[in-house]
Amino acid sequence: MNALSSKPKHLLDFQDWSAERLNALLDNADTMMQVLDRPVKKVPALQGLTVCTVFFENSTRTRVSFELAARRMSADVVSFAAGASSVTKGESIRDTIEVLTAYKVDAFVVRHQAAGAAHLVARYSGKPVINAGDGRRAHPTQALLDAYTIRREFGTLEGKTVAIIGDVRHSRVARSNAELLPKLGAKVILCGPATLLPRELAAEGVTLTTDPREAVRNADAVMALRLQQERMDAGYVGSLQDYARVYQVGEDLLAFAPNEAVVLHPGPMNRDVEISSEVADGPRSRILAQVENGQAVRMSTLYHLLVGRA
Amino acid sequence: MNALSSKPKHLLDFQDWSAERLNALLDNADTMMQVLDRPVKKVPALQGLTVCTVFFENSTRTRVSFELAARRMSADVVSFAAGASSVTKGESIRDTIEVLTAYKVDAFVVRHQAAGAAHLVARYSGKPVINAGDGRRAHPTQALLDAYTIRREFGTLEGKTVAIIGDVRHSRVARSNAELLPKLGAKVILCGPATLLPRELAAEGVTLTTDPREAVRNADAVMALRLQQERMDAGYVGSLQDYARVYQVGEDLLAFAPNEAVVLHPGPMNRDVEISSEVADGPRSRILAQVENGQAVRMSTLYHLLVGRA
Amino acid sequence: MNALSSKPKHLLDFQDWSAERLNALLDNADTMMQVLDRPVKKVPALQGLTVCTVFFENSTRTRVSFELAARRMSADVVSFAAGASSVTKGESIRDTIEVLTAYKVDAFVVRHQAAGAAHLVARYSGKPVINAGDGRRAHPTQALLDAYTIRREFGTLEGKTVAIIGDVRHSRVARSNAELLPKLGAKVILCGPATLLPRELAAEGVTLTTDPREAVRNADAVMALRLQQERMDAGYVGSLQDYARVYQVGEDLLAFAPNEAVVLHPGPMNRDVEISSEVADGPRSRILAQVENGQAVRMSTLYHLLVGRA
Repeated sequence: MNALSSKPKHLLDFQDWSAERLNALLDNADTMMQVLDRPVKKVPALQGLTVCTVFFENSTRTRVSFELAARRMSADVVSFAAGASSVTKGESIRDTIEVLTAYKVDAFVVRHQAAGAAHLVARYSGKPVINAGDGRRAHPTQALLDAYTIRREFGTLEGKTVAIIGDVRHSRVARSNAELLPKLGAKVILCGPATLLPRELAAEGVTLTTDPREAVRNADAVMALRLQQERMDAGYVGSLQDYARVYQVGEDLLAFAPNEAVVLHPGPMNRDVEISSEVADGPRSRILAQVENGQAVRMSTLYHLLVGRA
Repeated sequence: MNALSSKPKHLLDFQDWSAERLNALLDNADTMMQVLDRPVKKVPALQGLTVCTVFFENSTRTRVSFELAARRMSADVVSFAAGASSVTKGESIRDTIEVLTAYKVDAFVVRHQAAGAAHLVARYSGKPVINAGDGRRAHPTQALLDAYTIRREFGTLEGKTVAIIGDVRHSRVARSNAELLPKLGAKVILCGPATLLPRELAAEGVTLTTDPREAVRNADAVMALRLQQERMDAGYVGSLQDYARVYQVGEDLLAFAPNEAVVLHPGPMNRDVEISSEVADGPRSRILAQVENGQAVRMSTLYHLLVGRA
Repeated sequence: MNALSSKPKHLLDFQDWSAERLNALLDNADTMMQVLDRPVKKVPALQGLTVCTVFFENSTRTRVSFELAARRMSADVVSFAAGASSVTKGESIRDTIEVLTAYKVDAFVVRHQAAGAAHLVARYSGKPVINAGDGRRAHPTQALLDAYTIRREFGTLEGKTVAIIGDVRHSRVARSNAELLPKLGAKVILCGPATLLPRELAAEGVTLTTDPREAVRNADAVMALRLQQERMDAGYVGSLQDYARVYQVGEDLLAFAPNEAVVLHPGPMNRDVEISSEVADGPRSRILAQVENGQAVRMSTLYHLLVGRA
């Protein structure tokens, strides 16, 4: 079977995506990076097509990243902010999506607070859908940009080890990386306090530990996850200070990691909680590279779903 | 007199619009539908022109429909959300419009909670104005898309009967249809509980009834109007359940209508209040066709006002 | 030294801007006005470049003016409304700007409630930054459009006198004009109640007076500044009525000004507080000309910073 012949219609998670397909998408991101390095960062690839961003949950940052990705390929972008819409008048997600589909947009980028929402949109719209985060379940373009960042650093993901440290329980980023990276030949170590580390995430290529020093020992990349104040209030951690003392990705912890290990963070950062400012701004940090790479990866994803060959 | 020679400058309501002019606009919507059926749904008709949407009242859905209509003809669109603007600092509608006019935009699309607001904008701007809803008074592009949907269904509006059922009192959609459809040769029957059915709407070509079975008996199209929870609180109806039992556009009521009658709804729907889900999603429903047609009608309207010949 | 050879990278205030440079920018605004007078108000000057507006403080009016200026030169515009963003999750201005810079936008337009914020953005981004208002400190494109309006009126700024009347204390517009106009050869008279007239603003070319009749006596232009209700609550003025009786720019006061003096206002106006409606809408008023000119000046500024020759 030729894996590339079964082109997925959507990017909801990585279930329908073969390693070959994923590598093709990341290869194409290299081409997009070349576009972004030109003085005029614009190509006509999606001219005349319209991408609709539908954000039921606010995320200016992610929305802008997708919007720029689409525009740099000359697509039109229309933003449907669900908070300001008839959704607040009790309209169902199905009715909203069917209306937007009837507007004849060509693709959807969806963020929603509930797991599975992007799948619903895919079912109701018939158009390509990119999941830009659904509850704690998945945020596949974030995992793709993490993978791409590591690949650019080391040339390959094959045999690499990625330690993901923090509030794993509430993190769609952790789940998407745990799904993606093993497909591409990397090992994932999920690490956090026991209360924030769901046992069921252990899988082929994914191990769990509550010990951050053990997590980083052989890591090529160390990713810190945002810890929200609310977790303290809900009793998951004693205090942000207690948490930071053990799990903060700082110089103390990185002393236990290989010298060439790089540091990632999906943003926005709580500086000096889950990551020290010293590390965030230091030579190991690839945090701004992630942002840059994210645009190229999103361009590649839109291109792949909208005009790429089967 | 050649009716087509007196081209109206605005679309505020249908007072200045002759049947010939209106039919020309609907004919042109057919051309726009062809554009929307192409893989690349974009023409250069309004290249270099700027359409300004000014929404004093929120309506993401209507705003996006106009925005897409303008962009598909290559216009630039600038959105002025009055809620987030100096209007909240007490600036008058006149000052706001004069400022936007000084920005040299080429047309306005205006939504406002007060009847007559679009007329004010037309007076102060000197630019073509499309009324996208002013209080309970008018929402002419909605009526045009309703007319266009019926015309596509039956080939003509001449001699057709349209039953509009629900909260007629608070509906600009009902008022605009009652103004437009008789001009195009159709009969309108307005139907609802007596408290929601203002007697003064009876006119040439417009009859009123509180009996929904009588309303639908000879109807070619049955339009359900949104019933808002607030109407119950204000005592217009006993309860949503009481209302729905008599006035809901459901299979029970449609059993009294001709077999070929289609069902319309301006959206967003309160499913199982003014319309049953079975009907909304059933074979008679043209609700999503309305949305599609709305974009073509709005393209045609913008084209007509901005570049169409006199 | 050739003043034009040291091209400033940003427009934060006028410190780095020589009179020659400023006059070149205003000359170029004349070319932009010609674009705005054409039926198709669009040129390809900034094709493929992306301008990012970052408004930490809301100002639809100013944002739209910049957005249109950029679009009329074919730039893409991406709007980052800080209120709806991760800034509310506690992200620092530095992290926000570094992320937006990593998106590879080509210039920033920044509004912030704190003095000096635009300088911070310039430091963190490395991209051209236009200050669209930072606290009470500066709003340089507003001063440029005021200067341009006076220049168009009288052919030159050399030897002209501009009276600025009102809440000077809280006004970035007053401060930017006091910095700019003397550079261009004009005299500035700042006028207001003693509580709203900080002594330290007196400088070469800038005089202060609490007497509005004295202020307007030799004025070629009289600018009224917005007086906010809050100033009364804070005890700066007794009441809006008391204030208006003495300082309102109305026919009574203008009787003391030269016949050819014109009236300016940065908007939005509190009609019949700091300015009478009669004057605002009368023959001396250049208030709407300011708005029009503002777009040309902002086009010229963007052009100057993004593609203009050194």
